[in-house]
Amino acid sequence: MRIEKDSIGTLEIPKQAFYGIHAKRAAQNFAVTSEKVHPLLLKKLIMVKQAAAQANYAAKQLSEKKCQAIKQACCDLESNFPAYQAEFITPAIQGGAGTSTNMNVNEVIANRALELLGHDKGNYQYLHPNDDVNRSQSTNDTYPTAGKLALFELDNQLSESLVELIKAFESLAHTYSDTIKLGRTQLQDAVPTTFGISFAAYAALLKRCLNRLTAAQTDLLILPLGGTAIGTGINTPPKYQQTVLHYLSELTQLPLKSADNLADAIQNTDSLLAVADSFKNLATALGKIANDLRLLSSGPQAGLGELELPKVQAGSSIMPGKVNPVIPEVVNQIVFQVVGYTTTITMAAEAGQLELNAFEPIMFKDLFAAAELLSKGITTLIDNCLSHLKVNQDHCRSLVENSAEIATVLAPKIGYAAATALVKSALKQKVKIRTVLEQQNFSTAEIDQLLNTKHLLNQPIVQTKVSNF
Amino acid sequence: MRIEKDSIGTLEIPKQAFYGIHAKRAAQNFAVTSEKVHPLLLKKLIMVKQAAAQANYAAKQLSEKKCQAIKQACCDLESNFPAYQAEFITPAIQGGAGTSTNMNVNEVIANRALELLGHDKGNYQYLHPNDDVNRSQSTNDTYPTAGKLALFELDNQLSESLVELIKAFESLAHTYSDTIKLGRTQLQDAVPTTFGISFAAYAALLKRCLNRLTAAQTDLLILPLGGTAIGTGINTPPKYQQTVLHYLSELTQLPLKSADNLADAIQNTDSLLAVADSFKNLATALGKIANDLRLLSSGPQAGLGELELPKVQAGSSIMPGKVNPVIPEVVNQIVFQVVGYTTTITMAAEAGQLELNAFEPIMFKDLFAAAELLSKGITTLIDNCLSHLKVNQDHCRSLVENSAEIATVLAPKIGYAAATALVKSALKQKVKIRTVLEQQNFSTAEIDQLLNTKHLLNQPIVQTKVSNF
Amino acid sequence: MRIEKDSIGTLEIPKQAFYGIHAKRAAQNFAVTSEKVHPLLLKKLIMVKQAAAQANYAAKQLSEKKCQAIKQACCDLESNFPAYQAEFITPAIQGGAGTSTNMNVNEVIANRALELLGHDKGNYQYLHPNDDVNRSQSTNDTYPTAGKLALFELDNQLSESLVELIKAFESLAHTYSDTIKLGRTQLQDAVPTTFGISFAAYAALLKRCLNRLTAAQTDLLILPLGGTAIGTGINTPPKYQQTVLHYLSELTQLPLKSADNLADAIQNTDSLLAVADSFKNLATALGKIANDLRLLSSGPQAGLGELELPKVQAGSSIMPGKVNPVIPEVVNQIVFQVVGYTTTITMAAEAGQLELNAFEPIMFKDLFAAAELLSKGITTLIDNCLSHLKVNQDHCRSLVENSAEIATVLAPKIGYAAATALVKSALKQKVKIRTVLEQQNFSTAEIDQLLNTKHLLNQPIVQTKVSNF
Amino acid sequence: MRIEKDSIGTLEIPKQAFYGIHAKRAAQNFAVTSEKVHPLLLKKLIMVKQAAAQANYAAKQLSEKKCQAIKQACCDLESNFPAYQAEFITPAIQGGAGTSTNMNVNEVIANRALELLGHDKGNYQYLHPNDDVNRSQSTNDTYPTAGKLALFELDNQLSESLVELIKAFESLAHTYSDTIKLGRTQLQDAVPTTFGISFAAYAALLKRCLNRLTAAQTDLLILPLGGTAIGTGINTPPKYQQTVLHYLSELTQLPLKSADNLADAIQNTDSLLAVADSFKNLATALGKIANDLRLLSSGPQAGLGELELPKVQAGSSIMPGKVNPVIPEVVNQIVFQVVGYTTTITMAAEAGQLELNAFEPIMFKDLFAAAELLSKGITTLIDNCLSHLKVNQDHCRSLVENSAEIATVLAPKIGYAAATALVKSALKQKVKIRTVLEQQNFSTAEIDQLLNTKHLLNQPIVQTKVSNF
Repeated sequence: MRIEKDSIGTLEIPKQAFYGIHAKRAAQNFAVTSEKVHPLLLKKLIMVKQAAAQANYAAKQLSEKKCQAIKQACCDLESNFPAYQAEFITPAIQGGAGTSTNMNVNEVIANRALELLGHDKGNYQYLHPNDDVNRSQSTNDTYPTAGKLALFELDNQLSESLVELIKAFESLAHTYSDTIKLGRTQLQDAVPTTFGISFAAYAALLKRCLNRLTAAQTDLLILPLGGTAIGTGINTPPKYQQTVLHYLSELTQLPLKSADNLADAIQNTDSLLAVADSFKNLATALGKIANDLRLLSSGPQAGLGELELPKVQAGSSIMPGKVNPVIPEVVNQIVFQVVGYTTTITMAAEAGQLELNAFEPIMFKDLFAAAELLSKGITTLIDNCLSHLKVNQDHCRSLVENSAEIATVLAPKIGYAAATALVKSALKQKVKIRTVLEQQNFSTAEIDQLLNTKHLLNQPIVQTKVSNF
Repeated sequence: MRIEKDSIGTLEIPKQAFYGIHAKRAAQNFAVTSEKVHPLLLKKLIMVKQAAAQANYAAKQLSEKKCQAIKQACCDLESNFPAYQAEFITPAIQGGAGTSTNMNVNEVIANRALELLGHDKGNYQYLHPNDDVNRSQSTNDTYPTAGKLALFELDNQLSESLVELIKAFESLAHTYSDTIKLGRTQLQDAVPTTFGISFAAYAALLKRCLNRLTAAQTDLLILPLGGTAIGTGINTPPKYQQTVLHYLSELTQLPLKSADNLADAIQNTDSLLAVADSFKNLATALGKIANDLRLLSSGPQAGLGELELPKVQAGSSIMPGKVNPVIPEVVNQIVFQVVGYTTTITMAAEAGQLELNAFEPIMFKDLFAAAELLSKGITTLIDNCLSHLKVNQDHCRSLVENSAEIATVLAPKIGYAAATALVKSALKQKVKIRTVLEQQNFSTAEIDQLLNTKHLLNQPIVQTKVSNF
Repeated sequence: MRIEKDSIGTLEIPKQAFYGIHAKRAAQNFAVTSEKVHPLLLKKLIMVKQAAAQANYAAKQLSEKKCQAIKQACCDLESNFPAYQAEFITPAIQGGAGTSTNMNVNEVIANRALELLGHDKGNYQYLHPNDDVNRSQSTNDTYPTAGKLALFELDNQLSESLVELIKAFESLAHTYSDTIKLGRTQLQDAVPTTFGISFAAYAALLKRCLNRLTAAQTDLLILPLGGTAIGTGINTPPKYQQTVLHYLSELTQLPLKSADNLADAIQNTDSLLAVADSFKNLATALGKIANDLRLLSSGPQAGLGELELPKVQAGSSIMPGKVNPVIPEVVNQIVFQVVGYTTTITMAAEAGQLELNAFEPIMFKDLFAAAELLSKGITTLIDNCLSHLKVNQDHCRSLVENSAEIATVLAPKIGYAAATALVKSALKQKVKIRTVLEQQNFSTAEIDQLLNTKHLLNQPIVQTKVSNF
Repeated sequence: MRIEKDSIGTLEIPKQAFYGIHAKRAAQNFAVTSEKVHPLLLKKLIMVKQAAAQANYAAKQLSEKKCQAIKQACCDLESNFPAYQAEFITPAIQGGAGTSTNMNVNEVIANRALELLGHDKGNYQYLHPNDDVNRSQSTNDTYPTAGKLALFELDNQLSESLVELIKAFESLAHTYSDTIKLGRTQLQDAVPTTFGISFAAYAALLKRCLNRLTAAQTDLLILPLGGTAIGTGINTPPKYQQTVLHYLSELTQLPLKSADNLADAIQNTDSLLAVADSFKNLATALGKIANDLRLLSSGPQAGLGELELPKVQAGSSIMPGKVNPVIPEVVNQIVFQVVGYTTTITMAAEAGQLELNAFEPIMFKDLFAAAELLSKGITTLIDNCLSHLKVNQDHCRSLVENSAEIATVLAPKIGYAAATALVKSALKQKVKIRTVLEQQNFSTAEIDQLLNTKHLLNQPIVQTKVSNF
């Protein structure tokens, strides 16, 4: 054991531990969940430290030796993260607005750098977690910077999944562009449409969701870095803000921008909330689609039976041969979870006070979880459901042909009231509209003309070619 | 015009207005909605004032003359409320934790009392809104008292509607106790059940909701009255708390209780939140039921078609003869609204600070709205949907008889795997299970024995007699 | 009374009523709220009808006489809306996905047109609500078109209010650009900042909210008009879609666009949800600001006391001289309400099924309410709070000068650990940092240099000139 | 590898694996989260299997040999759960309404039983996961049974933590029963109170929350066990329902009850939602308390400074000596998370359809998480915050003595208007009320009498002895 000291007192730390007293206190104080801080946030924070070391060196705030040691430590941690992961011991839910996460990273880097410099861990007189690793920085600016960069990456992954989903629906729309089916409004039989149109509508919906993801994501590259405490930039050397951003842009290969108003950028989390809401919007879209898939595949005998989802597992421990729409169901649950996360994030965003929002840790935690759940949910939807989905085309056509609602096409010709009488008569007699028209002495030619599918499917051709993203 | 004065300054008030300067300022400051404070809250607050006048007289804090004038004014307002309603000008959403509502009531009572005493309105030297009408009171204790009593009454009305709904479902359960239908889990065909069971299940669900309403409601009769500012009871004469509660119990004919900890009773709104959650719980139950009704009545030709909801209006401006499940749809929307209100109330409850929750006005507003929407939604559901709902019994029986899932009953006899093979064979050949069994050389007698409906409907008899509330 | 007939049966309608049987049934079926459909949605729907009449005439679907009568009827209703408002009797919460609203408008226009043509109301053989007024239309396409246009207008009004709010904060930032104050993170004393920075941060936050409003609003001008039933365009003449959009663009003076995929545009409500979320984002921003205003003005003696909000009304019925932050409080409550509305809208959006979302009525109702509440809340915040807000500058400066946290500036010079010891010593002795430095034999010159305000307020100059929108 | 077969096809399973094909498919299909099903739910499900084996044996549905093997397997799994934990591979979020969890448990038990019987794993002809282990059961009844029992246990743990929290506040109330402090309503100075009253109010609030937990929890012991598929009890021998419940009561040592309506008990999740809402109610209470703690401890110099929370870790990586209220902050975040979980659970509960709610897995997952977070959050609040919290008594008294609001006590004597003038004069002159009274020639005796603390703290004695639970 080694002894470390902070403003509270001293604590024993395992001799070989890279983490230090700040991280240890956090692990004890916030023992409310076994979930640790997301690795991606840690990795981005390490990059921030690396960029800061370079900028501090450039501003003569750090010796070359220290700078090199810190840089090398950061590189080691990034390139071999799993080996060090157990050193990041602060829980995902933590008080202190991320200070513990920041200090944990400072400590691990400092101790790795000390190791590289040939010192024992904990000998911070040679290289200090606060004075050197955290130099020109505050949790206020570095933590949200790292969090936003991590979220940006997960958001990208989600967008990539979503692009695949859009393509999957476009491909289905293409395959089934001519497959006529009865439309339904309010679950009641309506006029005919095609599965081409239906699948293309899903694709169109999801494209808007993709645009919203992209739009919300943009703000994540506008960073408070250099703002240090509450955006004042206190304790930074001249031009530090530009320099550190320059190095971080290099490291991340991203077009990072500095926030115009650093105080604003540090105290407000509206951009995180906007990302959460772009997730929620996508989630509700996925929920609608999953509901439709479950509804259209209901049966196999006593349901709508228009779609046949691939059978991916036995559906019941007691009812033999039962197969359930388990993939859409898992999507539905992800939807509920993501909407719930957004409630959490909304409340956290609203609860910011004065110069800081202390509740960023829960916001990042839930944002990361939402992005990953959505991304994986979309992947299983494509792979285990859409890729082998089939349309029961004969059944669909038969439902259309028997439907009284095709009389809609007659309304402009014979009037709404007369057409209504036709429909009621067909339903009452349980015969087709065609039969009622025959009963009313329309000729076959007239009837063929009136009920021409071309009229029924009057809509402009819907674009169903696969998008080129 | 008359001139009134408060700590802020002076304001012109119409000569004949019963309201005064405090109400007028509120109307100006909170001009964010045209909705006024709910009449029921006002009426209960008037009762509180009446009880307070009596208690103050008993404690010699008010002359007999003033007490009589205030009492008479309160009686006038209660018995002829519509005539005075326009005098209550404070908006439903207001800052100040209800102070404006309280002062508006104080002012109207004072001016009506002045009128009765032969004085001009505004001559508060003869009878003062604060010193006399509000004597021994604070908004802190009187406003939540009135709000809780109003909510209690609306809650009662909701419970009465709910009892009727339970009876309606029990009556349907009775009517259709023998009507066999296919059960569905996850929208996939399952084993048979009856509509008797289904409707009884709705009744059972709603009974639990009713119990939750009742349980949450109980706390509404535990009152902070007498606590005045922040529950200290400051500026009340000895025994006032007991006396005023005694008079208010008399006036309301309710078994009112005093809160054990008045500070707690004034600063916390958890009891309001619990009522909101009892509404939300009921709402989700109604939502599930409305969804089922819409699903089971889907069609008329290309849906499940098991239920026929009464046709209450034409369903489309373009599709002739279309009829939609509009009553369940209005219920669904009420459900969403009530869940939304609960979000609002949850956030408001959480936002209380120190000795007061300043956000009771929005809580009461949304609670009242939720209770009324649910109550009226239930009434239209009973009157315009359930009372004339029909089951398509032949269709239901036919779906059962054709279902492969009745093979479930065979599993314990022939094993899960063999039963699964039967089901797959029936579905593949598109024949009945009976036919597959015949193919496998089971005798008719054996088959009859195996597929006996008695086995299929093994469940204990479900109580479907109409409850006696 | 006159008798009207629909597919359900007949109903008595008051002879002079402009509404007809469809509206009357809706009023009876949906008697769950006294709130009627928002006038703005009705007005926009009337415009749609007018445009449709013109497009139908152009396509020879309507005689000149009928077209003129309908056009004139629409003009009359638009220009003299209040005179006809009582004819729009369908409740704001309604089943049927807006069909009742659409039919109510069809009926009122038809009857006004009949009147203009010299016929009695109800003589629909001369001009029919469905066959003529609703020609080439469905509720599916006209209702969301009208709803989106109404929302666009309210959204514009909200943006205008928001611009004023941004200007108000920018003006305050300008006024107080040099007013030093102590920053606080996590409610604990931090390094100094200025009120200029604080107010500018609010302005910056709100500008992003404004951008989000604008971005979400854009989709509202992409319309499903011409899609009729489920987006098929059934029962429309050739080129109708373009023509009707052309006429509607003229009437509204807006750059309307047709949706690429009409089926998608009719069945999905993600764009409405995105608008709701832009409102929610703004709401949480306002909530944060309102909380800050209340916190900074806490006191007058035992609070932070940095801000003095204008006294707009007496704050207590019992505590003399008390004044409360009632305007921010009303804003807070609007925030909670809007977040609740978004929950409602989220659930409604998720609940769309197949070719339609039947729950648009509640979505529009809550969206309109949210826009109006936010707009009015912002207006009262500007007029009754910000416009006369004062900063207690002396108190603010004194808090800074006494704060131990100004030692932060020393950390890079003497190390984090040594600076921590200074702070602890100052707090323990209850003396200023300056005094501790003197105790440690720093010279006055050194101390002046170390604690120079310039270092404390290191941040780049924040743009505080008033924006030019 | 061994080959297993189900209705979908075959799959390779590691030879030594206790899980089988159903679990493996689930792990593949639902690879959306690395989180597995909660161990407690698995343990309770194993108990259900054990009880079922005994009941099946009693009803001669299972041989003694098989029954013993299953029983022994269950005992092994329960007593040595960690050794088998890796065999439970189904993800926490899963489609299929828990079927995968149920089948995973059936498979592990079957294979452990086979092992005990001397057979190789996978030789299900000797003992079958469905036909034997799952005999007389369905996922429909066993999964919610196990889930409710698991929740009951976590709920108990939460209640125990909550009792400790109540005792902690009661103890603080006792310690500080005489410590006078200024009350604040709407963050503005109000009349005095004591910290005894404040802490007792928290205790009183939390006691109601505890009662709500207990009330909601009761329904968790009412079980659908024996209902098998959709509550029909299909494939159960006579009296099975009573017998299995008897054995399960024995195993769990709990007073289990059978649901009256099994169909209802299986399809509805209102009781889970009620538990979630009892958590949410507690959460908002904790949120309010955490907010108060942070507010009252704001400072150390420029805040309210009435409370001193124990310093548990350094609060800033840049600002020396800063200490933050990190424990309340972690509580706040748990509050937001729990409210979000409740949104998820509300949506899931509403989404049940017909004979089943397919979304129980996410409901259980979030309920378990909420219970554990709240429980641990409460524990850290007690241990790391309340147990060493201090009141700055001198500062509190000084704030009271200087407050103008103590003039409230004068209002009944000199009138509200005159008292208001006094307060305004004191605030304007920045002097004490006492001084203003002296200026107005009140004698010291009179003043002493008027401002007697006894009058200021008029409230009845609040019970502050520690509760005896």
